Amino acid sequence: VAGWDDGADVIVVGSGCAGACAAIEAARAGVSVMLLERTSGFGGTSALSGGALYLGGGTAVQAACGFPDTPEDMFSFLVAAMGPGADERRIEEYAAGSVAHFDWLVDAGVPFKPSFWAEPTWTPPTEDGLMWMGENSHPFRELARPAPRGHRPAAAGHRGWLLMEVLTTAVAAAGVRTVGDTLVERLVWDPSAGVVGVVARRFGEEVVLRAGHGVVLAAGGFIANNDMLAQFAPRLLDHSKVGTDNDDGRAIRMAQAVGAATKRLETAQASINFPPALMARGIVVNGSAARFINEDTYPGRVGQHALFHQGGRAFLVFDEQGYEEVAEDLRMGRIPQWTCETVAELEAEMGFPERALQATVEVYNFHAERGEDPLFHKQAKWVRPLRGAVGAMDVAARRAHTNDGALDQGTGFRVFTLGGVHTTVQGEVLDREGDVIDGLYAAGRTSSGIHGWGYISGTSLGDGTFFGRRAGRAAARHVR
Amino acid sequence: VAGWDDGADVIVVGSGCAGACAAIEAARAGVSVMLLERTSGFGGTSALSGGALYLGGGTAVQAACGFPDTPEDMFSFLVAAMGPGADERRIEEYAAGSVAHFDWLVDAGVPFKPSFWAEPTWTPPTEDGLMWMGENSHPFRELARPAPRGHRPAAAGHRGWLLMEVLTTAVAAAGVRTVGDTLVERLVWDPSAGVVGVVARRFGEEVVLRAGHGVVLAAGGFIANNDMLAQFAPRLLDHSKVGTDNDDGRAIRMAQAVGAATKRLETAQASINFPPALMARGIVVNGSAARFINEDTYPGRVGQHALFHQGGRAFLVFDEQGYEEVAEDLRMGRIPQWTCETVAELEAEMGFPERALQATVEVYNFHAERGEDPLFHKQAKWVRPLRGAVGAMDVAARRAHTNDGALDQGTGFRVFTLGGVHTTVQGEVLDREGDVIDGLYAAGRTSSGIHGWGYISGTSLGDGTFFGRRAGRAAARHVR
Repeated sequence: VAGWDDGADVIVVGSGCAGACAAIEAARAGVSVMLLERTSGFGGTSALSGGALYLGGGTAVQAACGFPDTPEDMFSFLVAAMGPGADERRIEEYAAGSVAHFDWLVDAGVPFKPSFWAEPTWTPPTEDGLMWMGENSHPFRELARPAPRGHRPAAAGHRGWLLMEVLTTAVAAAGVRTVGDTLVERLVWDPSAGVVGVVARRFGEEVVLRAGHGVVLAAGGFIANNDMLAQFAPRLLDHSKVGTDNDDGRAIRMAQAVGAATKRLETAQASINFPPALMARGIVVNGSAARFINEDTYPGRVGQHALFHQGGRAFLVFDEQGYEEVAEDLRMGRIPQWTCETVAELEAEMGFPERALQATVEVYNFHAERGEDPLFHKQAKWVRPLRGAVGAMDVAARRAHTNDGALDQGTGFRVFTLGGVHTTVQGEVLDREGDVIDGLYAAGRTSSGIHGWGYISGTSLGDGTFFGRRAGRAAARHVR
Repeated sequence: VAGWDDGADVIVVGSGCAGACAAIEAARAGVSVMLLERTSGFGGTSALSGGALYLGGGTAVQAACGFPDTPEDMFSFLVAAMGPGADERRIEEYAAGSVAHFDWLVDAGVPFKPSFWAEPTWTPPTEDGLMWMGENSHPFRELARPAPRGHRPAAAGHRGWLLMEVLTTAVAAAGVRTVGDTLVERLVWDPSAGVVGVVARRFGEEVVLRAGHGVVLAAGGFIANNDMLAQFAPRLLDHSKVGTDNDDGRAIRMAQAVGAATKRLETAQASINFPPALMARGIVVNGSAARFINEDTYPGRVGQHALFHQGGRAFLVFDEQGYEEVAEDLRMGRIPQWTCETVAELEAEMGFPERALQATVEVYNFHAERGEDPLFHKQAKWVRPLRGAVGAMDVAARRAHTNDGALDQGTGFRVFTLGGVHTTVQGEVLDREGDVIDGLYAAGRTSSGIHGWGYISGTSLGDGTFFGRRAGRAAARHVR
């Protein structure tokens, strides 16, 4: 580059939860910080999320709700739930620092109501601050003492906006210079000093910005980049994408251009359009009418297994009693696609071969009579024989089968990527030899976080905020 | 580098099937060729393989055995069988050029006996030159006119050695200079000219070799590199590896060091230790006693589905009649791990919950009475109710459950990687922007071939020889 138009000690790219936390921590460390955002508004994809943060180990909210917890139990749960291929080293740090991180978020102004939501659902309609994320389901309840760790900022429904409103306020309070409408396109790399700045586009003009200490990339993943999906995660192409158009993988590619290694670019999460409270009370079967998972587990696991291991075919089967037990506002606007007097009729209407679904229900009921589910270990509280009139829903059902036209416009699966740039637990970006790239940091969806081929809601914002803070601190203290 | 110790127009790294074919074609194009091999013997991992080549579209062997075929049917089959994520562009070229490639191999001296082997098995004990590779099984038989395309050099049992003996002779006849005991460690890259040579180690000394036209990397995959497996394909770590210690990913990493993009590093194949002829006559169930695939399909598909989609749990259940029908030499030395008078007893002995396996067998038998398998579409010729005494085998069984101590020393799955360096269909290595890296070519397991998340025996040697030839030709005609 010919010269510098502007700059700061630390440049943070992206204003979602990871970028905001990186900027706050870097500024609090006493260096000048510039936070660049390509759009006019701050908050990134995080602001559109459900807002849950996966936290535990004994937070104030957990204590107030009567759930003891330890970092060790949180670690054991996450290693199992984020795998196969989970990043144990990262999870260890994440679990050990979770209570302090919760306190930091509270200090920053994030409100958590110390009350507990008990029913399975994606996003509770209340302001309750704590919920299960599958910790009490098989196989996790046998691996660690179960404690609910889904922490939810106090607003009804989706509340990512609230989290990002608070963090964006904290960014300003920390003295960070925030600059919108600035699209970072390239990194400036010096053979002797590493990454020393960025080249960005601002209202059509190119600006070259110097980073005295370092650059933190926190500009999202690549769910909006079909070329990258085709290359790394082709099975996602046909499904509804979770993210914004700005999750175009640009930050990952910029890092690769200076030698960054990537990790787990093939991994992904898939949510499923079945109401969790109805799943727990029914059975979920695949395209050959066989069950494949305990229906009371974290519902994202059902989606991930259905999409990646059952060829994307899944049906939720329930009886009238189960359906009636689920409150209207937890049904996600869905009505049964099929209803029949008997399982045999339902089997025929759904197009299954004769006896296939009947046999599955018979085996389930045989054990459910005793309150047991020896095949998939659903908790006893949800195990009851399916009797009388039965109904079913197809994951691939479209809006015609719901009473809320806004739902199910896609394939029934909502997907996003989990992989990204490979970093140390301090957020330093690594090259393919495993060496640190001087002056370059990454966090949030731009980086590969605690996830392998597993996912739990709250781990995106949890990982993003936790390791975002670390990346900001590491960049601030970096001296060339 | 300070200077050159030696060199040739084209340097080929690795003497397996891809490297040998690249060297032959480059030499026949009239340039000087040096073939480098790290060991003292030539033939690479290819020489240890079964030796089958996936070829079709109407070869002389297919015609002699009475099976008409077309490139279009071969294409349709491969796109389905090599997916999801198969490389359609590459498959198109591969299918279109397959008859000519078969003729080229015959001209090179590879003997194919024009006789057909009909029974399902991994490696026939005869010299028959043609066998099914699942083309006649669901869903493939509905997608394309089935034709057997497994072409086998004429020797009994594993015959990769024969293929490589012939190709190695052809390499010498073409005037290629072959150099053993030479381990290539780095590429020599010039900012203005691209890849211009290699740095190798020979009996402890470093030698710098100039490549006037280009370098072809054909030095195998990364199944022997646990660090790369942990990063890209962690699920393979616990299983028996197919390959040699030399499949250490070195060639892939050398290419990455000069900017090469990689593709599908997460994909893999897994064979399963069940006798295919017995699978076709029985049923294969997962850890919850449910069937999950048509048991008469290419047996590698059963393994891949079992390992990657059924958590690695699989059991083969059969009756006495089915077991007796399988010739001794097709039983792979395996004896039943469990034998019982009834399915109910077998279910209990195998540790399945009551009714789980019985229900699966009842549904299977219900339709088998009519010669049908509406759930998984096994061919009618293999569909018959399981009756009388029954037996079963566990994929995880160790040598204690076989009568041949040489079998089943691992987990029951034998795995290898499918991904590698991203190339054009001419073998030119691409960087992450999709641009050709000047002077660098790759083929065989070092590159990402026709495979996505699917595999059929014969496609490794088929892809390696076919695209190896192209890489050699492209390197030969490359002028800086």
